[in-house]
Amino acid sequence: MSIRIGIVGYGNLGRGVELALRKNPDMELAAFFTRRPPETLKTLSPDVPVYSMDSLPQHKDGLDVLILCGGSATDLPEQSPACARLFNVVDSFDTHARIPEHFAACDAAAKEAGTVTLISAGWDPGLFSLQRLMGQCILPEGSDYTFWGKGISQGHGDAVRRVPGVKNAKQYTIPVPEALERVRSGENPTLTARQKHTRECFVVAEPGADLKRIENDIKTMPNYFADYDTTVHFITEEELLRDHGGMPHGGLVVRSGATGEAGENKQLMEFSLTLDSNPEFTANVLVCCARAVYRMQQEGQSGAKTVFDVPPAYLSPKSGEELRKMLL
Amino acid sequence: MSIRIGIVGYGNLGRGVELALRKNPDMELAAFFTRRPPETLKTLSPDVPVYSMDSLPQHKDGLDVLILCGGSATDLPEQSPACARLFNVVDSFDTHARIPEHFAACDAAAKEAGTVTLISAGWDPGLFSLQRLMGQCILPEGSDYTFWGKGISQGHGDAVRRVPGVKNAKQYTIPVPEALERVRSGENPTLTARQKHTRECFVVAEPGADLKRIENDIKTMPNYFADYDTTVHFITEEELLRDHGGMPHGGLVVRSGATGEAGENKQLMEFSLTLDSNPEFTANVLVCCARAVYRMQQEGQSGAKTVFDVPPAYLSPKSGEELRKMLL
Repeated sequence: MSIRIGIVGYGNLGRGVELALRKNPDMELAAFFTRRPPETLKTLSPDVPVYSMDSLPQHKDGLDVLILCGGSATDLPEQSPACARLFNVVDSFDTHARIPEHFAACDAAAKEAGTVTLISAGWDPGLFSLQRLMGQCILPEGSDYTFWGKGISQGHGDAVRRVPGVKNAKQYTIPVPEALERVRSGENPTLTARQKHTRECFVVAEPGADLKRIENDIKTMPNYFADYDTTVHFITEEELLRDHGGMPHGGLVVRSGATGEAGENKQLMEFSLTLDSNPEFTANVLVCCARAVYRMQQEGQSGAKTVFDVPPAYLSPKSGEELRKMLL
Repeated sequence: MSIRIGIVGYGNLGRGVELALRKNPDMELAAFFTRRPPETLKTLSPDVPVYSMDSLPQHKDGLDVLILCGGSATDLPEQSPACARLFNVVDSFDTHARIPEHFAACDAAAKEAGTVTLISAGWDPGLFSLQRLMGQCILPEGSDYTFWGKGISQGHGDAVRRVPGVKNAKQYTIPVPEALERVRSGENPTLTARQKHTRECFVVAEPGADLKRIENDIKTMPNYFADYDTTVHFITEEELLRDHGGMPHGGLVVRSGATGEAGENKQLMEFSLTLDSNPEFTANVLVCCARAVYRMQQEGQSGAKTVFDVPPAYLSPKSGEELRKMLL
């Protein structure tokens, strides 16, 4: 009996989940749900039915876990608790500041329904959070560092595209090599935003636009760019699509700690990701979390969970015995 | 109410646990247990009582978790199941091939007693095992790589010291930079033992010993050195103590996978450790695992466990609410 998965929302993330499920033979893609007219959705899986989002309640008995692939700004705050009333759910809610309220809303709904909702799965929040947790537990005396990139930041790209005269744009967040070096040396530096990351923008301007003014508007934009060293390159639309069409990302989490009678021994833990496709990798995390959610509910748990609550073995299709023998 | 810890065995690892407990205010070092005459043990904690190993059963009600700091060859296979009959236990059993039988022995003893024993905590097995598990779950299509070093390998040093004419020796295991580079490129190479690691020996010879013969004996030693490129340096005892007296170690685990319709997107996960003191770091892992073991038993679990079974939040002194707010 495979675990029957429903995908809610079909953008880059939903497509990534669709592809990831093909590599996990203990799971089965049972249905897509969309707000668009279902017949207009062209998926990679012509044999899998596409339903309207409104019909979700009718599929309550045919699905074991829903993977929500909408956005954190407006989709998930509403969808996750609503779906938790009927289904086990995994989402990738990533607005860090609003996690406590999102957790509370999902927890109440899922507890009432006897379902499990795992929120904020992915890599940050998600795998990076796990590393921060492990680092602090193992090395209570130490400092945490999280760097992002090199990778495309959707939010910063959107901000550049809102500048008058900008037709299209991509933005890369890049860790500063000197900062990385200082952190890895065990020096435990205090670093400003500017010292940690640089930002690089590739901009397609409208014909006749004032490039100097656009560059200045970008570089002085509060919150997004003013606190960073930013480089702006003007390129053609063709170059943008050809050279910057991918969705690479990544980053690293370092815990730099000390042990010994007088803290004389430096101890460094580092976790890093180098991803050609950010949404596909995130999708793969969501899929193994769906397996964990299914098991947690099967054993009688309910309510909202995060990666902090998941015994790692629950992520794997292998038995405890196999895992101990082959991976421990 | 702090968690009362007993340390069993007082070598480098036991001393590391003693120091780690000072940084974890929710735990308390309650007693040492030793096979030596207790009055001969000089610890760093003069206020903490030292008892004979034989008196362990008398302390059943005064301790919440025992951390076993003996060796995997002869100590732990006997001590862990015996202690599991009376106490919650954490050990660092690291003979990979014998983990299944060690798990079974501890599981039977702990289940009967209603206690929890976490076996094979540390970094390999332990944190590295966790990374291998996560890598395979998240990127089912891919390859695993584990590199060790640069660091002191106790077992290889022991092997060199058994060569006739060798007075003292240390051995470093070193990852081959070219192999690391190929793995990080996403090439997924098949690597032999020789291609992955080199071995470097620092040897103090007995006066008048035949250095050529010693070097040859080392380099051709089956299992330990014959399959590797090995360098042998002859140095004085003074140099050995001065330059090679530490216990650094480390290593890295890489999962190199692919996603996409045709596996066109490379995805790389890497976890690495750079440790000035291997035993102190391992001790720190054992200490936060003791917290998890205590909680698992408090909530009614029993039997043998591994890091694969521990919800990460159980490792932390912080509440779920704090963790979600600050670390997720």
